[in-house]
Amino acid sequence: LCHAPRKMTTSQDQSSYRASITADIEAHLKQAIPLKSPLSVYAPMHHMTFSAPPNPAPALCVAACELVGGDRSKAMAAASALHLMHAASFTHEHLPLTDRPKPKPKPKPTVDHPFNPNIELLIPDAMVPFAYELSAVSDDPTQDTSGRVLRVIVELARVMGSQGIVDAQYREVLVSPLDGRELNDIEWVDDMCRRKEGRLHACAAACGAILGGANEEEVERLRKYGLYVGIMQGYTNRLGRRVKELERVVELRNLAMKELDHFKGRKVEEISSFIVGL
Amino acid sequence: LCHAPRKMTTSQDQSSYRASITADIEAHLKQAIPLKSPLSVYAPMHHMTFSAPPNPAPALCVAACELVGGDRSKAMAAASALHLMHAASFTHEHLPLTDRPKPKPKPKPTVDHPFNPNIELLIPDAMVPFAYELSAVSDDPTQDTSGRVLRVIVELARVMGSQGIVDAQYREVLVSPLDGRELNDIEWVDDMCRRKEGRLHACAAACGAILGGANEEEVERLRKYGLYVGIMQGYTNRLGRRVKELERVVELRNLAMKELDHFKGRKVEEISSFIVGL
Repeated sequence: LCHAPRKMTTSQDQSSYRASITADIEAHLKQAIPLKSPLSVYAPMHHMTFSAPPNPAPALCVAACELVGGDRSKAMAAASALHLMHAASFTHEHLPLTDRPKPKPKPKPTVDHPFNPNIELLIPDAMVPFAYELSAVSDDPTQDTSGRVLRVIVELARVMGSQGIVDAQYREVLVSPLDGRELNDIEWVDDMCRRKEGRLHACAAACGAILGGANEEEVERLRKYGLYVGIMQGYTNRLGRRVKELERVVELRNLAMKELDHFKGRKVEEISSFIVGL
Repeated sequence: LCHAPRKMTTSQDQSSYRASITADIEAHLKQAIPLKSPLSVYAPMHHMTFSAPPNPAPALCVAACELVGGDRSKAMAAASALHLMHAASFTHEHLPLTDRPKPKPKPKPTVDHPFNPNIELLIPDAMVPFAYELSAVSDDPTQDTSGRVLRVIVELARVMGSQGIVDAQYREVLVSPLDGRELNDIEWVDDMCRRKEGRLHACAAACGAILGGANEEEVERLRKYGLYVGIMQGYTNRLGRRVKELERVVELRNLAMKELDHFKGRKVEEISSFIVGL
């Protein structure tokens, strides 16, 4: 099967599909984290939640749920949790520590520190438990879906922890400067993209599938789809838009499309917007 | 009802009851967090988990479960999660930040920093998700207890978050120096004990009760018992052993014992060791 000839432009419909999911997640989060009193607590939480750089993983979670026939509302709590975890980990990653190695010359977004480090340390510590709370309370006991919700909590916990994002941050912050490895070491970049963005998007797609009622094969196919989407996203985050032409990225795109073949006749156009948009 | 004449000494049996729970929790955690390769990741996690100062909340969780007739194994994951959350929050509380206010002259334990701040920031970020993972995977789908496990995850999330421990840390670190309030302001101390140790122990006892299959009245009575135990613990943490004689602490002890009256004929002696030992 050759996927190269497929149209790789983002149609108006695909863009608006992703935009509508993103708007729904934002509305869900705004309702969950109101800008209420005491403002000294809620203002930083609000700020850190909504000023984190965009990340496609939460929307991918919802798209995977809809692809397997689940209602969008079923994935909304997990998608919001993914965004909170992303925002919390982004904040800690940019915390000014006394011995933080000097930033490497990366195409990273410039980060403002409108709050002092104590707040930037504490507030994400509150956001992460809130992510699990949102997920756990989303269970509707009348629907007999507690098992799915618990499974998603395990997925969310594993993707953040010492086998997940923290492992990647650890390698990125501490291991890489010691090794003298840099962005021109493509093997190292690929490994980081897989460990960080890859794992996060794989988890997001799998969670959406689980909550949408997918069978095991569908969950694993969507997990793989998410992995490829995430690695591509990782390349974009590290190397910018020019990655489109990289042989490796073309290969990842084809691998991702191949997983979607299984879902023919369903909302494939919609979920494929996560790769054609890259 | 007057509880003052009750014997307030810790018997050999009571001490060994708490010690046996503590040993079981430690064994559970050691099995969950092995000192395995890569040591650069697992050694700090291991160190931070097992070097945090002792905290009675995890053992209280198990005692509450047993008091209502639940098997000890049912509460082991939640107790381990409580310890991980305590250890993670203790580590972040002692992180050397660039603008951390100078430590106040408190009877706080001296804290070594054997790892650099990046590790001390990242590893607790991994420990907290692991706490939720342990809780979520402890569910036995054949036992129809998913609802209880999800409820406990919500309890654990809330007690850590912006309405829980983080709120207390926030007030302690940032609000108190601004107010010029100190340890001789007994109203402020009481409020902090309630918000921090009080909430944690109330949550621990309630979680144990839920997992042990308690009814709603039992859960709420044990939550109150935990609250009083926690406030007393807070006084001890802040003011040392001399608190025993404080009028307020005597009052808290009586309030705590009163909640246990409801459980006559059950393992009351065992769980009351959490107050007579103070």
